[in-house]
Amino acid sequence: METDRLDKWIGKITGAQKTRTPRRRHSKKDHKVQKLRIIPLGGLDEVGKNMTVFEYGDDIIVVDMGFQFPEEDMLGVDYVIPDISYLEGKKKNIRAVIITHGHMDHIGGIPYILPKLGMPKVFATKLTRGLIERRLDEFELTKMANLNTINPEETLRFGPFTLNFFRVAHSIPDGVGISIDTPQGRIIHTGDFKFDPEPAGSTQRTDIRKLQKLCQKPILALLSDSTNSLSPGTTISEKEVGRNLEDIIRKTPKRLIIASFSSLIGRIQQIIDYAQKYKRTVFVSGRSMIENMAIAEKLGYLKIPKRLVFDIRRTKKHPGNDSIILTTGSQGEAVSALTRIAMSEHPHVKLKEGDTVILSSSPIIGNERAIFTVINNLCMLGARVIHSAIMDVHTSGHAKQDDLTRMIKLVKPKYLVPIHGEYFMRKGHAELGSRMGIKNENILLIQNGDVLEIFAGKVEKSQEKVETNYIVIDGLGEGDVDSLVISDRQKMAENGVLIILLTVDGKTKKLLQKPSIISRGFVYLKESQEVEKEVGVKAERAYRNIIEKKKGVKRGEIKKYVRGSVEKYTHQKLERKPLIIPVIDEV
Amino acid sequence: METDRLDKWIGKITGAQKTRTPRRRHSKKDHKVQKLRIIPLGGLDEVGKNMTVFEYGDDIIVVDMGFQFPEEDMLGVDYVIPDISYLEGKKKNIRAVIITHGHMDHIGGIPYILPKLGMPKVFATKLTRGLIERRLDEFELTKMANLNTINPEETLRFGPFTLNFFRVAHSIPDGVGISIDTPQGRIIHTGDFKFDPEPAGSTQRTDIRKLQKLCQKPILALLSDSTNSLSPGTTISEKEVGRNLEDIIRKTPKRLIIASFSSLIGRIQQIIDYAQKYKRTVFVSGRSMIENMAIAEKLGYLKIPKRLVFDIRRTKKHPGNDSIILTTGSQGEAVSALTRIAMSEHPHVKLKEGDTVILSSSPIIGNERAIFTVINNLCMLGARVIHSAIMDVHTSGHAKQDDLTRMIKLVKPKYLVPIHGEYFMRKGHAELGSRMGIKNENILLIQNGDVLEIFAGKVEKSQEKVETNYIVIDGLGEGDVDSLVISDRQKMAENGVLIILLTVDGKTKKLLQKPSIISRGFVYLKESQEVEKEVGVKAERAYRNIIEKKKGVKRGEIKKYVRGSVEKYTHQKLERKPLIIPVIDEV
Repeated sequence: METDRLDKWIGKITGAQKTRTPRRRHSKKDHKVQKLRIIPLGGLDEVGKNMTVFEYGDDIIVVDMGFQFPEEDMLGVDYVIPDISYLEGKKKNIRAVIITHGHMDHIGGIPYILPKLGMPKVFATKLTRGLIERRLDEFELTKMANLNTINPEETLRFGPFTLNFFRVAHSIPDGVGISIDTPQGRIIHTGDFKFDPEPAGSTQRTDIRKLQKLCQKPILALLSDSTNSLSPGTTISEKEVGRNLEDIIRKTPKRLIIASFSSLIGRIQQIIDYAQKYKRTVFVSGRSMIENMAIAEKLGYLKIPKRLVFDIRRTKKHPGNDSIILTTGSQGEAVSALTRIAMSEHPHVKLKEGDTVILSSSPIIGNERAIFTVINNLCMLGARVIHSAIMDVHTSGHAKQDDLTRMIKLVKPKYLVPIHGEYFMRKGHAELGSRMGIKNENILLIQNGDVLEIFAGKVEKSQEKVETNYIVIDGLGEGDVDSLVISDRQKMAENGVLIILLTVDGKTKKLLQKPSIISRGFVYLKESQEVEKEVGVKAERAYRNIIEKKKGVKRGEIKKYVRGSVEKYTHQKLERKPLIIPVIDEV
Repeated sequence: METDRLDKWIGKITGAQKTRTPRRRHSKKDHKVQKLRIIPLGGLDEVGKNMTVFEYGDDIIVVDMGFQFPEEDMLGVDYVIPDISYLEGKKKNIRAVIITHGHMDHIGGIPYILPKLGMPKVFATKLTRGLIERRLDEFELTKMANLNTINPEETLRFGPFTLNFFRVAHSIPDGVGISIDTPQGRIIHTGDFKFDPEPAGSTQRTDIRKLQKLCQKPILALLSDSTNSLSPGTTISEKEVGRNLEDIIRKTPKRLIIASFSSLIGRIQQIIDYAQKYKRTVFVSGRSMIENMAIAEKLGYLKIPKRLVFDIRRTKKHPGNDSIILTTGSQGEAVSALTRIAMSEHPHVKLKEGDTVILSSSPIIGNERAIFTVINNLCMLGARVIHSAIMDVHTSGHAKQDDLTRMIKLVKPKYLVPIHGEYFMRKGHAELGSRMGIKNENILLIQNGDVLEIFAGKVEKSQEKVETNYIVIDGLGEGDVDSLVISDRQKMAENGVLIILLTVDGKTKKLLQKPSIISRGFVYLKESQEVEKEVGVKAERAYRNIIEKKKGVKRGEIKKYVRGSVEKYTHQKLERKPLIIPVIDEV
């Protein structure tokens, strides 16, 4: 049935192609040449929640659907997903969701967003699809979803869009970039990429030949990954990192703990290969590491020799000196296996003097403090800790400056649109483009919610702005980051809460007893009695005041007045601003 | 009077020297050779709150008295100061507090701690003393304090301690290291230092000649700065940074905004000098920048030509293209001048397309996210932003690996005690010492609260452990970081607060009305009604249950039961754990 729908759209594009004759001038709406619109809903003001809309008339394709980890001031929030308000009235127009690779900033939003869009078809390469399925499984959505596998050698057509793919090297196998043909011209979207002459395991090189072939036709716009635009030179090869790891494995007689990203299948393959070579046993810890390895092995992206790799839970005694423990937690995440090892709280691994820990990773901006705390703790337990600031035990998945200019040279685009990354990274990419000879007016530094309009060979930023609020996922709830919830949390995080209970007579409104004061997270023991007493006095006085001064005053007004009075006291006397909650109990 | 006291102690040390004859065996307690104890109360598990106690019998000197900025999980806390429990019964033994230099992690704790110790004498070099005075002024403590100026060429004696000083180059002028003679031998404490062949402005080179002279006598232990122990090579010179800044100033035709540390007087001097050379006017923004420059100028550490430097508030129009704006905020601090410029909220500076911003600084661990956000905002407003990851516009104040080994070679200590810095930094320093040939058993990796005992040429870590809690400064209050206050804030920051108001009959204990539910920072609008209703039902049921089941049940028990019941619901149904506060209003 779904294939029928696809066929219909393939038919449509064939139809559209046929109408590319003078006749189209007086043909139906469908056949009129329209503007192509490109709208990034996420991924442009952050590293995370990538999602871009390509819209031509009544046809939409979406590229990627990621989430982002919350920023520091989004207290208690689990994830942030793109705002899809723009798509809400256009669900029926969505022909396909194309996912470039299986990282969370490209697939993490799928279980939250897909159902809201009426479960449009999703297209992804084999491994990426496997990882999406795992995500959907967690939400019991797999059966309802319509997942399709991309073969990068084939062409896909969706209404007016014709898609070709080129493999890209990245820090996860099976990534692709996309060539998007539209009635307005050909666009290249790189996805996340690097040029790695020596990728490892199942990760393949960026398919330069295919890209060159696709770029024989003039490219109107290049949308290219900006994450490493401020790093000079070229990204070092994955195999180079492997050689450094081999060196450590060879020279270390005792136990090794290697923390890395669970999606870095090429790195994991190298560690397994060297473990075999140097007769080590590998124990794996961390849910995502175990799950990703299982998926990658099942789908043929990871080769695990028999009797070499074990789940850490399967070992009854602590892993010995000949073992390599492969673990998550390289970002210092609070609940990860490495953090638990560092806190001496891991059920199976007790760190010993003489253990070596390798952080085969680099810090994501904002995680530095957490990572250094883990390193401190590991050192205190007697471990030797090797990380990327000391030695090349990690390489990035993103193109550096020389790689970015190489991409520009290959694609020779008329327009450059730096994507993926924070503003200063995209600005760095824009400067590279300018130095490569692209006219400044042809370099578009857009933000989430901006609308690019493409017509007659011109790409312009429209005046229109699409809604792109931060939509937060918080436990099982979902909300707006600008909501009172977050700002209340911020206030309580800073100075706690002060509850003022006013028990009053329902009829006379008179106070029946002295106000009760309950404070949490506000004052320290030494000062608490005096402060609470004083707050009670202020609250009582304020309540009597407002009741006397204003007959028939409303509850809201009373609360506001009492709050203001107490706030003045806490701020002036204590230099603190807790969240003050007057509670009026009418009996 | 105070001089009399000092003279008495000078007398005492003379006496002690005389007793170095067989007679001391049967002499008074004062003359018995005792253990020297070195106790770091802070600065060893962090970069911050440096404070070390040197104790010999009934005589104590304290080196430094800093504070620390709170760690991420210390919500709402302003500063952390060292725990001085150990000194509380020993106030009368404190002969002097010696401050090595004027950074906040060495002087910030003074106004909080000094009064608690009975205002012991403080000794500091001229600029450092000026900066301490400013701190004490803020607390109206200057008159009560007993401040004394160190002349680094002179010797100070306090009871059994004889102190000599050597100037050290650091990122603030007038820093000193200390040679401490005790009956148990000579100790060298470097303070924060680097070897800078070309320091700028009033900052002087590390006085190697004096150090060599002091090290002609055998050095028992070297306590040395570990902050940069993981950085290879040698710290680049301040003048080198100045040349890079000159280059930018010379080549930039438009307005320049330079953010740096307000205590980096040498850097500020260079910027002023180049401003004069290239006919620029300097406007200064940020309270600490203005104050530190005023103190440094007054004391002769900063030379400001007439009609060149102005307070930003003195300009009525926005500073023009020929101006250099010198500002605080290089760490992305929320209330700093640079952050306000980046948020378009600065009253006097409106960023323009074509402005250049230099962050003449490097991120302190944990500040990276805040700094990158400021950089993003500046870029979005059209500025070109230059920071230390792009160009050498900053240098550290701390010795790197080659400098640290040079210090070890100069001092040739029997024992090495890495100080200042997080554990992994001190461990890196220990490894350097080991490579330099110091025996591993003579390298002491101690932590805050450890006690080093020195006797008969041996330095050993004692089994004793001194209390070193995190003492937090929070508004005008002071408390223990382990208190309920902080953990309540953490809970509320994550999931907010849920107040359950149970209005009950004082006699029968029966509920008089349905429980009122007040939630803040807990649920988002969409879900709030349903959740609050459900919580009310659970709370009512729980209350009735416990009242019926258990006659005469206490309030605390009722609350605990209701809380448990509601907690179960929020956790299972919403995957959230708010702070639940049942309030029983008996009427």
